[in-house]
Amino acid sequence: MELRIDRQAMVPVVQQIVDALAGWIRQGAVQPGTRLPSVRQLAKDNLLSQSSVFEAYERMIAQGVLAARQGSGFVVAEPPIVVTHPGDKPWYEGAEANWERFTDSPLGELKLGCGGLPESWRESDDLSYAIREVARTDMAGLFNYSTPLGLPALRQQLHKRLKHINIEVDEGRIMTTHGASHGLDLIVRTLLKPGDCVVVETPGYSNLFDLLRLHGITLLEVPRTPRGPDVEALERLLSRHQPRALFINSLYHNPTGSSLTPTIAQRILELAKAHGLLIVEDDVYADLQSSAGTRLAALDTDQSVIYVGSFSKTLSSSLRVGFVVASAEIISRLAEVKMVSGMGASRFCESVLCGLLANGAYRKLVQRQRQRLSGDMASALQVLEDAEWQVFGRPSGGLFIWGRSQLCDYPRVRTLAQQCGVLLSSRTAFSPGGEASDWLRINVAYASDPRALRFFQATALPDRRQPS
Amino acid sequence: MELRIDRQAMVPVVQQIVDALAGWIRQGAVQPGTRLPSVRQLAKDNLLSQSSVFEAYERMIAQGVLAARQGSGFVVAEPPIVVTHPGDKPWYEGAEANWERFTDSPLGELKLGCGGLPESWRESDDLSYAIREVARTDMAGLFNYSTPLGLPALRQQLHKRLKHINIEVDEGRIMTTHGASHGLDLIVRTLLKPGDCVVVETPGYSNLFDLLRLHGITLLEVPRTPRGPDVEALERLLSRHQPRALFINSLYHNPTGSSLTPTIAQRILELAKAHGLLIVEDDVYADLQSSAGTRLAALDTDQSVIYVGSFSKTLSSSLRVGFVVASAEIISRLAEVKMVSGMGASRFCESVLCGLLANGAYRKLVQRQRQRLSGDMASALQVLEDAEWQVFGRPSGGLFIWGRSQLCDYPRVRTLAQQCGVLLSSRTAFSPGGEASDWLRINVAYASDPRALRFFQATALPDRRQPS
Repeated sequence: MELRIDRQAMVPVVQQIVDALAGWIRQGAVQPGTRLPSVRQLAKDNLLSQSSVFEAYERMIAQGVLAARQGSGFVVAEPPIVVTHPGDKPWYEGAEANWERFTDSPLGELKLGCGGLPESWRESDDLSYAIREVARTDMAGLFNYSTPLGLPALRQQLHKRLKHINIEVDEGRIMTTHGASHGLDLIVRTLLKPGDCVVVETPGYSNLFDLLRLHGITLLEVPRTPRGPDVEALERLLSRHQPRALFINSLYHNPTGSSLTPTIAQRILELAKAHGLLIVEDDVYADLQSSAGTRLAALDTDQSVIYVGSFSKTLSSSLRVGFVVASAEIISRLAEVKMVSGMGASRFCESVLCGLLANGAYRKLVQRQRQRLSGDMASALQVLEDAEWQVFGRPSGGLFIWGRSQLCDYPRVRTLAQQCGVLLSSRTAFSPGGEASDWLRINVAYASDPRALRFFQATALPDRRQPS
Repeated sequence: MELRIDRQAMVPVVQQIVDALAGWIRQGAVQPGTRLPSVRQLAKDNLLSQSSVFEAYERMIAQGVLAARQGSGFVVAEPPIVVTHPGDKPWYEGAEANWERFTDSPLGELKLGCGGLPESWRESDDLSYAIREVARTDMAGLFNYSTPLGLPALRQQLHKRLKHINIEVDEGRIMTTHGASHGLDLIVRTLLKPGDCVVVETPGYSNLFDLLRLHGITLLEVPRTPRGPDVEALERLLSRHQPRALFINSLYHNPTGSSLTPTIAQRILELAKAHGLLIVEDDVYADLQSSAGTRLAALDTDQSVIYVGSFSKTLSSSLRVGFVVASAEIISRLAEVKMVSGMGASRFCESVLCGLLANGAYRKLVQRQRQRLSGDMASALQVLEDAEWQVFGRPSGGLFIWGRSQLCDYPRVRTLAQQCGVLLSSRTAFSPGGEASDWLRINVAYASDPRALRFFQATALPDRRQPS
């Protein structure tokens, strides 16, 4: 068996062996019980050390993909694997090419599937004032490094905001980061190691999948339902694969817009306790919350939840300020890695945010955003209903609707979008395994634009289409 | 043999085995040729998998620490190892405790050994103006993510500055970072892997040692001479251990203040070419350069040098803006990791720096700093000569002098410093292996303070002391 190991690649050799074997099992639909080559043989065929092959086999046994059978060596285990694979391309290719996801489209199309608020919603007065205040009065804010956990005054403000959403933690359990992605990166690099398994939601957040793969983590998929992750599927994954962590959006899940119910939340916490599972709750849409919401961090009594927040979605993506909440012991480890790997966050940006939280300007900003989004959400759901789209649950707020045109013909839908000047979300970005989907992420803040309305109208089934 | 492996620790088990065995060999002054326990025995004694032990032995053979002998298994290799060890404490302990290195001392002592310019040197007018300009006129600077490589206008300015110091690279080979430490972290996590060996200078920069250890990299020490690293020692390390990279301060080395000579630079580049060695040139004191300087990146014709720069030492540590220069292929890989692990740098901070570079304010700022430092360097060298200190080379500029009192009695020197209200640099921070040294880093910008002068005077040998 030839594995095509690349010794120059970023991915460690053992992980490459694991990936290659998982690919072989998956693509060839290999039956449970099928015998693998011996360690010696596979090492010889691929000029590998036996210890590398042995370690790869051991890792796959730990993952439940392989089993060791007395007398017949290593065999493919039952049940069939659910382990997902990284894409075919090396993960580091295309940094610039992928960037178009985040920047304006060159032809000025409407970014109906994008992840943030439109430029037209931006309010610069308060932000600009807060910046000028720091520049005028705060010498430490202009010049100094911040502290390992982040500016104490800012953590005090975060503490107050968290209390409002029933997350009661003292300031020593809050640490600032360069945005939520940086928080997730610190968590992954500090608490996980290559070869670990974690559970991610499918569909889910593509940058998280890339981040986990970068660290050589194996992704197990749990389907997202309109009420949260499928807890029965989760329980099966926990029993079978002993994953180290679950990554989850409780509120206004990206991309489906769905939110966790209290029942599901309680069940997840029970499972976490029983299986020693770490929960990483990514709550970047927290401040858009317009009705009651359920958060794992608020219900958590065992400090098994690590909570990640950000101001990139509401205030500014430019300042790069987010935060992590965890047990004091974990925060201390994360802080050390944060300092060693970058000497902390920007004190200037921390001070600006602190000013906006302290003077109430941020609170009023997100209040306006919430009100506007509530209206947009209601209209968008109505428009999609009129166009007979299938909608995933019925989001109670936030930015996203996950929907599918009844045309059931993706190339046709994409052509219609192009004709209307609309850019759709990626078909493959939200799947941990990179599978193409007909479901689209709709950002409701863009959905009332005339181009979007024309597009939805065009996708209505012919007999339902309004006469023009 | 009991290795005390901690399965909960951050450090991978194989690395722990390597560290424990290296410690045993070093501390017991074990003779070359001494036989190690068999893989089976060591695994059994420590409840480890044989494959982990085997991998550790293989890694130590690759490092030249062990050798495999026909018939007698694994033995300690000759020559004696130079591999350095991480400290006894887990690397992540003490994040808050270590912080005092960077913050003001509670008793208001003079931080004679610190790494930056004094607060009294700060000039806020131009910085404050640049910040207000971005806040007033630059909507993208207020709100947007930056691009993977960093703001194009800023990279254009960096391109021009680099040209002035004879580093000619197009803008596609420059990438911004959150300061130099973040640049080093991206380089290490993208281009090295756990178990790799690299060469670091001794004495050297403690945060770099911590960073490399965090990634499970083994440090080989090359002594720093007043003209650069000891190239003969470097050559021996290259032949024996095949390290992947050399980390170096060419100009105004931290902590010795010494600078690379053209002859040594040329020899290092030849060695790098012959041994396929990557050079990481950390040039954070570049803008303090007051006379001709030699940089590897300027002489490099093979793109084997990765160059790291920063504005934290001159303009502000709060903004967190630095940059990396490398081949286009490496920059593309670093940019992908930068985006996946944190969605890029702060566009706001990039825009502020760009403004200061474009309007000439930064150029004038560092000109003033250089002039002032030149005077301080000359006075400090004179004061140390009067006090009969031993000085490492004779720095031609920059912030640091590496010196040792003739008292040869460190506790006495520290007591004198305390009596004079002076805080000394750490005794162990500059050694990759954490060994205590009598040599001290003197920051010349602090050395003309009356407390420093009193301290130097007090350390003069009794018969040389000025009558008071």
